[in-house]
Parts: sequence; structure tokens; C-alpha cells
Amino acid sequence: MLKAQITVTLKQSILDPQGSAVEKSLRSMGYPIEAVRIGKFMEVRLAEDNVAKANEIVQEICHKLLSNPVIETYHYTLEQEHQKEVEA
Amino acid sequence: MLKAQITVTLKQSILDPQGSAVEKSLRSMGYPIEAVRIGKFMEVRLAEDNVAKANEIVQEICHKLLSNPVIETYHYTLEQEHQKEVEA
Repeated sequence: MLKAQITVTLKQSILDPQGSAVEKSLRSMGYPIEAVRIGKFMEVRLAEDNVAKANEIVQEICHKLLSNPVIETYHYTLEQEHQKEVEA
Repeated sequence: MLKAQITVTLKQSILDPQGSAVEKSLRSMGYPIEAVRIGKFMEVRLAEDNVAKANEIVQEICHKLLSNPVIETYHYTLEQEHQKEVEA
């Protein structure tokens, strides 16, 4: 089983009102903040052990469902998930 | 300037209806998906160069504003941000 950790963020040129709001809140609380950008984080467990196939699937679902390629970009990492083995 | 990349996710014991919805959609599209969990991703640029102080700030803002410690956990990485230098 492979686990993909996906982050979807707005492209740099796209305004991020949610990030601006958090930025202002943090500044008003007195923290030395320069900028905040907010995105989504997704953890997808795949019933697939072939890394090449899993890469294909993740890219496809990012394009089709998890991100909007017009305004967003995505990054992901794939890792083998170690299942706990229970001894009898 | 330091950049913190923060992911905030629901604790394992907390139901994630948004993740379940995405999981069902992906399965109905024919992808071999086991599970999906959805969280938030935040990139915070700090006007602070001291790593120890930056760590303190990030942990504080995660507790106070960016996550709800009752139902969520957070992870973050801190890295030096290289600013482009423009030569005159």
C-alpha cells in the first residue's frame, strides 16, 4: 500500500484572501509575520504497490478532482506505508 | 527570513466527512483508493532569522490560531528562505 501526501496551493499570481486574513490576525497579535498563504493538504492511501502506477494515479486525480489547474498547483510525495503486523 | 510549512490534520479518531466524500468520488471514478484524509496547508513567512525563536513562534501560532488542539494535530518544517538578490 502506498500513501500519497498532496499539497494543493494557489498559484503565486492568484490572490489568497484567506491567507491575508490570517496574516492580519497574526500581525495584530504581535507576531513578526511577512506573509501567509493557505492551501489544502490531502493524504491518500492507494490500494496499489507499483510506484510508477501510483504516480500516474496521483497525477490524474490531482488534475481531475483534487486541484483546479487553472488557479492551483500541487506537489506530492509518495511513500510505502508500513502496516503493523500482528503476530498470532 | 524563515519559512514555515505547516500541515494541520484532524486527529485519527475524529471523523473526516470531507475526506470520505472525496474517497467515495474517487472510488466511483474507478481509482484504487483505500482512504482519504483532508487537512489544511499553510505557508508562513516570518520576519525572524533566529531558528529557536521562529520555532517558538510557529508552535504558539499553531496552538492559538492555526489549529484547534482539541480535534487537530499539526506538523511543520522550517527552512531558510533565500531571497533573490538583485545586483545594481
